[in-house]
Amino acid sequence: MNLILLDPAELIEPDLAHLTDTRRLTHLRDVHRVQVGDTLTVGLLDGQMGRARLETLTPQTATLRIETLNTPPPAPLPVHLVLALPRPRMLARSLEHVTALGVKEITLLHTKRVEKSYWQSPELKEEKIHQHLVLGLEQARDTVLPRITLCKGFRAFLDDQLPELLQTRQGLVAHPGMANACPRGVSAPTLLMVGPEGGFIAWEVEQLLESGCQGIHLGERILRVETAVTALLSRLF
Amino acid sequence: MNLILLDPAELIEPDLAHLTDTRRLTHLRDVHRVQVGDTLTVGLLDGQMGRARLETLTPQTATLRIETLNTPPPAPLPVHLVLALPRPRMLARSLEHVTALGVKEITLLHTKRVEKSYWQSPELKEEKIHQHLVLGLEQARDTVLPRITLCKGFRAFLDDQLPELLQTRQGLVAHPGMANACPRGVSAPTLLMVGPEGGFIAWEVEQLLESGCQGIHLGERILRVETAVTALLSRLF
Repeated sequence: MNLILLDPAELIEPDLAHLTDTRRLTHLRDVHRVQVGDTLTVGLLDGQMGRARLETLTPQTATLRIETLNTPPPAPLPVHLVLALPRPRMLARSLEHVTALGVKEITLLHTKRVEKSYWQSPELKEEKIHQHLVLGLEQARDTVLPRITLCKGFRAFLDDQLPELLQTRQGLVAHPGMANACPRGVSAPTLLMVGPEGGFIAWEVEQLLESGCQGIHLGERILRVETAVTALLSRLF
Repeated sequence: MNLILLDPAELIEPDLAHLTDTRRLTHLRDVHRVQVGDTLTVGLLDGQMGRARLETLTPQTATLRIETLNTPPPAPLPVHLVLALPRPRMLARSLEHVTALGVKEITLLHTKRVEKSYWQSPELKEEKIHQHLVLGLEQARDTVLPRITLCKGFRAFLDDQLPELLQTRQGLVAHPGMANACPRGVSAPTLLMVGPEGGFIAWEVEQLLESGCQGIHLGERILRVETAVTALLSRLF
């Protein structure tokens, strides 16, 4: 937790935040070992970042007096990530990684090799997703929540969403065996598509290429989804 | 498991392997859903890769008849990774990620912000480390085990190991706030040093820079060690 992310609802005065959740209180006490009077890095959800002074600390609450709040959050990556829905534990970790890396638009997509049961996972509940995104923001010192869209049909994605997404973005499909190596140092707005463990099926790749996406690969090594996504984002941007 | 990695000790004839471990047998049965007669991708530990036919399968054993074994493993990354010892669960995942990415030389280093108790973790036992390396190789389709060195003293590393490592490699210290952004597309042999959660202390960075290493950063976002290591390797090579 490199930033205390304050929800506007936690502001009991314009410059006074009141925390009551066990997770952050425990972390402040046991990891940061804070004491009343300490100055801490804070950020307002979807807003600016700055410093606050710890005014009170009890086992159940903490109050933070905001002293400055005028640093903008770091720049987002110019990417919309389309990720075939990973299995629940990998989803949790992948959401934290990509949020920490600065992705702000994420579509979780059904493809042939996604197990249908994954869509019933409690990890997909709004409050669970929110938790993982917040962990990613706290880690990276960012305040801007990514927007998550669930798309349970590949055909519907192709027909109804992909054309609009590609109007203002280059489309890249990461898949082993594609013709081109993943480019480096891209600044153009990009739609990055990553398949599930086991990959897209050939038909899905064909459809994406026919729709105007370009196929890219990361070499002959086959990486786990969470490794591949971090590797792709880091090489691309 | 994208490759069945055969230990030479599992060869009961020059071209016949006999598997008895539950982990791979369960995976073959439940995930790959193999049947006798199927052809599978195999590799010989520290050797070549090829194909084998499943000759027998029982709940306790499988035998594989090797048909070809003449594909070299993928090229290694030209890097020696020096990683401040992460906490045990992060160590396990990081070893799998970096092995899958092709790192072959890893030094696990003590630094000021590494908790001393981590050196007592069962994850550091030889057979546990071996397990994580094998998982990384099986994932990436590689056969060559990385070499792991434990170094429990930062001063000893500086004095006894670093000068020799830098004789044939450029040294890069990844640390927030360094002057230069992480370079891209490097092919020179590289020593990459990554600090613990919380980072190197200032004195450690100074010592490494004075020894001839160059400081690099990944931007203003602070990443978890496992995310940072994957991001660094993917951007560098």
